[in-house]
Amino acid sequence: MVVVASLRLPSLTSLFFASSRSTHRAPAALFRRRHSSRRQPFLAAAKFSAQSAASSPPETTEELAVNLKKSSNSSKTNQDRVITPRSQDFNAWYLDVIANAELADYGPVRGTMVIRPYGYAIWEAIQDYLNVKFKETGHSNMYFPQFIPYSFIEKEASHVEGFSPELAVVTIGGGKELEEKLVVRPTSETIVNHMFTQWIHSYRDLPLLINQWANVTRWEMRTKPFVRTLEFLWQEGHTAHATPEEAEEEAMKMIDVYTKFAYEEAAIPVVVGRKSREETFAGAVRTYTIEAMMGDRKALQAGTSHNLGQNFSRAFDTQFMDENGQRQHIWQTSWAVSTRFVGGIIMTHGDDAGLMLPPKLAPVQVVIVPIWKKDDEKAGVLNAASSAKEVLHSAGVKVKLDDSDTRTPGWKFNFWEMKGVPIRIEIGPRDVASGSVVISRRDVPGKQGKVFGISMEPSTLVGYVKDKLDEIQASLLAKATSFRDSNIVDVSSYDELKEAISQGKWARGPWSASDEDEARVKEETGATIRCFPFEQPAGTKTCLMTGQPAEEIAIFAKSY
Amino acid sequence: MVVVASLRLPSLTSLFFASSRSTHRAPAALFRRRHSSRRQPFLAAAKFSAQSAASSPPETTEELAVNLKKSSNSSKTNQDRVITPRSQDFNAWYLDVIANAELADYGPVRGTMVIRPYGYAIWEAIQDYLNVKFKETGHSNMYFPQFIPYSFIEKEASHVEGFSPELAVVTIGGGKELEEKLVVRPTSETIVNHMFTQWIHSYRDLPLLINQWANVTRWEMRTKPFVRTLEFLWQEGHTAHATPEEAEEEAMKMIDVYTKFAYEEAAIPVVVGRKSREETFAGAVRTYTIEAMMGDRKALQAGTSHNLGQNFSRAFDTQFMDENGQRQHIWQTSWAVSTRFVGGIIMTHGDDAGLMLPPKLAPVQVVIVPIWKKDDEKAGVLNAASSAKEVLHSAGVKVKLDDSDTRTPGWKFNFWEMKGVPIRIEIGPRDVASGSVVISRRDVPGKQGKVFGISMEPSTLVGYVKDKLDEIQASLLAKATSFRDSNIVDVSSYDELKEAISQGKWARGPWSASDEDEARVKEETGATIRCFPFEQPAGTKTCLMTGQPAEEIAIFAKSY
Repeated sequence: MVVVASLRLPSLTSLFFASSRSTHRAPAALFRRRHSSRRQPFLAAAKFSAQSAASSPPETTEELAVNLKKSSNSSKTNQDRVITPRSQDFNAWYLDVIANAELADYGPVRGTMVIRPYGYAIWEAIQDYLNVKFKETGHSNMYFPQFIPYSFIEKEASHVEGFSPELAVVTIGGGKELEEKLVVRPTSETIVNHMFTQWIHSYRDLPLLINQWANVTRWEMRTKPFVRTLEFLWQEGHTAHATPEEAEEEAMKMIDVYTKFAYEEAAIPVVVGRKSREETFAGAVRTYTIEAMMGDRKALQAGTSHNLGQNFSRAFDTQFMDENGQRQHIWQTSWAVSTRFVGGIIMTHGDDAGLMLPPKLAPVQVVIVPIWKKDDEKAGVLNAASSAKEVLHSAGVKVKLDDSDTRTPGWKFNFWEMKGVPIRIEIGPRDVASGSVVISRRDVPGKQGKVFGISMEPSTLVGYVKDKLDEIQASLLAKATSFRDSNIVDVSSYDELKEAISQGKWARGPWSASDEDEARVKEETGATIRCFPFEQPAGTKTCLMTGQPAEEIAIFAKSY
Repeated sequence: MVVVASLRLPSLTSLFFASSRSTHRAPAALFRRRHSSRRQPFLAAAKFSAQSAASSPPETTEELAVNLKKSSNSSKTNQDRVITPRSQDFNAWYLDVIANAELADYGPVRGTMVIRPYGYAIWEAIQDYLNVKFKETGHSNMYFPQFIPYSFIEKEASHVEGFSPELAVVTIGGGKELEEKLVVRPTSETIVNHMFTQWIHSYRDLPLLINQWANVTRWEMRTKPFVRTLEFLWQEGHTAHATPEEAEEEAMKMIDVYTKFAYEEAAIPVVVGRKSREETFAGAVRTYTIEAMMGDRKALQAGTSHNLGQNFSRAFDTQFMDENGQRQHIWQTSWAVSTRFVGGIIMTHGDDAGLMLPPKLAPVQVVIVPIWKKDDEKAGVLNAASSAKEVLHSAGVKVKLDDSDTRTPGWKFNFWEMKGVPIRIEIGPRDVASGSVVISRRDVPGKQGKVFGISMEPSTLVGYVKDKLDEIQASLLAKATSFRDSNIVDVSSYDELKEAISQGKWARGPWSASDEDEARVKEETGATIRCFPFEQPAGTKTCLMTGQPAEEIAIFAKSY
């Protein structure tokens, strides 16, 4: 069986191996909140399980009464924002954070998601960074139609096997039954190859390096906001080359772009490596992946880059004339990162208080909370807060002043912590008098993260804030790295592997066993080979399963 | 009959009135190239007329052998790039420009379009500008799912009447027949209102100001690249307000953003005004529009802003509690600009030589063509060309150096003219010797647009180029404005109107006649009311049709 492995859990696999997995995880689609005795801020969660909630009226619960625009002015009390402790129920915590931080909501069609402004702003930050990197590496953006003739999907054998169970199909257009059904793109390799046959003729037309930002549709049965939804947003790069070496180099270059992005922007210390044959993208020769460890120690496939070899070019007969006048099939790659990455950020850095955003991707890096008691203090405090805002804004810091007077400072502290804003600046009458502010770090709770008496003098304030943002960025990465490293266990036998997995950890060990053995591990432990990491120890190795010589170590883990 | 009027020609209308219109225009879908005796660079044009070209193999004509990445290196000769003269056949010219400038290509499904990198870069420039303006005016980006339950579309009476004949419908998902069919969004008012009911509760939640960049699908029968395609890209703004006055103010504010964009960025002197009742968006109370005059003097609806009143909020029961504790339906707007605008830019500024791009939206503002004959000249020329490129690039000018040695300078001149690049810089051995360059303007043909001896000294060169770009931007607008104004005729009777329309011009005259009279004009002349322009003459007016008093003048024109 070929497993569909691009940027998500292979859903086929989970269906086939549901029995062993269901004890370990509660799929979102089947998930019901167990804590019915207390308030449930995300009642809508149940909607994901409804197969046809389409025409039923929306639940207008008080808990959902959240305002996209001025949340801090909304009529709810602080107590409405209950977030399940992460340690108590990771999945419930995740859904609560998404609801309360207003990252996303459920669409009316099962498994679809509305990405709300705060969640979309994180995606925009991801786009802004990657878009520049793609262009720097020579790629042009363009746009392919999303409707693909059904026959295209059938041309590449493993591709159709991987994707056909998950297709959304348009059968009616303009009131009429269509002669040929149209697939709503699950990915674009087929239509890209169809067009490449028209654009590529000679070696002079190569390499052809393109990318598109688009929505894609996969009819997933078990969905979870950001991580796996019926429709999601992504970028998909597609390239054509004259030689297999160039294609390989490109596939490696792009997984490297993703790796740098994960480390440097998202502060996620991904493990980068090659997928096993079983987990390779449907239609690829080799799939490279970045695997991230979530707060519950499950792995999240956060980005993939595929060397497609000539699989699609043979299926679509995409040929070029080489320098010797010989016709050859082109060598190709494709690579993608999706809105799933937002889920990865939430599940890597978040804590019981809610979201915790890496400064480089945070829509709001600094929130200023003015504090006053008496009316005669208000003007002075607000004045100081406004000028601090201006100073930071001019210096390129993404800053928000929460000057609403319907909320207490305490409420605002909790609210912006829950939204994951890296730095909070407090300004009260005494601060105004002393020309200073109080600065709190989101990542260091309580008094420890609080510094008093930072001067309001512009260059001092800007310098301090920028340094702190860098420090927080580095600190999030360090914390996640240490968490990751303390949860990867080196194993040399199957028993040790099983033990590590049962403890919820990742198991790393030499592997040269068969695809069947790999399937057995999955069935018996719920863990899959996440990758053969690029970083390999030196020396001879013995396969943990067979005792035979092994060339590589693999990492096994349960995954999303 | 309610005419669907958002950003496209009402296709229903054209079907009903096809007899009178077909003499005036050759719809793209029926279009066949008439000049079969000469080379046809855009043979694929015929594909748009094929109802089911989906599974047929692509035509791999030599003419289509164009390279996305390094067009100047491609194997074709200059003579391959034949563009039908604009005066001879405007539609053929338009398709030739799109093909030769590599703006777009046909998708495998009838009526779909692949937006190629050069065309997409123009769209990105449009996005970059509007995105900033939307945020400046308080809007947040977000994303709604594209699958809409069929029942949603049926909730607003005129909306379903307008859109139901044009829907693409998903009936199969994950291999199974769906219980409720899903519409692929033609526009998002219905799903937006569904979500608004969950987010809006109190007047404190208003205004709610959002926007999304997305693809939309309308099953058009007559398609034309950029102007009308089955799937297109757009932004759609959606806002909710507490009072009708605020909604009206918002609708006006956004049509103003579009108007400024058209004038200042696209150099298109649109006429801004209100649509007639017949041409109002399906579901809106009032539609504001910007109407652009194309090179063939047909009107193009280039952007619309709708005051939706309470039509959708009543249909979806989107209510809020006002300041007096009374429940009220919200007041709404929506507004959109699409990839159609790229078609508008082509058809406004282009000439027989091809595309002509306004500098502010041009992906390449300056192309540098080095010229050498002898090998010993090459290094010096290329060296000077490279440093000129660096100087301009550092100054923020979008500059390209075409240093390929497989093409002659003459070929390159034609090629980049055809691509619409505003400024060409030539550097030859004599220029190197004198430390100067030759600068040619795309908008002023021949010697008149050519200036010799511009110093290569960085600040001089940058200053000169930036001034020229501004001058070209202003000049394109002035030229289009004068063309527009010389083709709008003031009329005071129906006979005069008919005469003006038969000459291919726009007719402007007082109008207070009935919807039936408006339909009669359309049937008899092929022209529709494009808008009641905001700019109205003072004084009393007499309806050109009825002789009764009229409050406003209207503009009639044939349109895309």
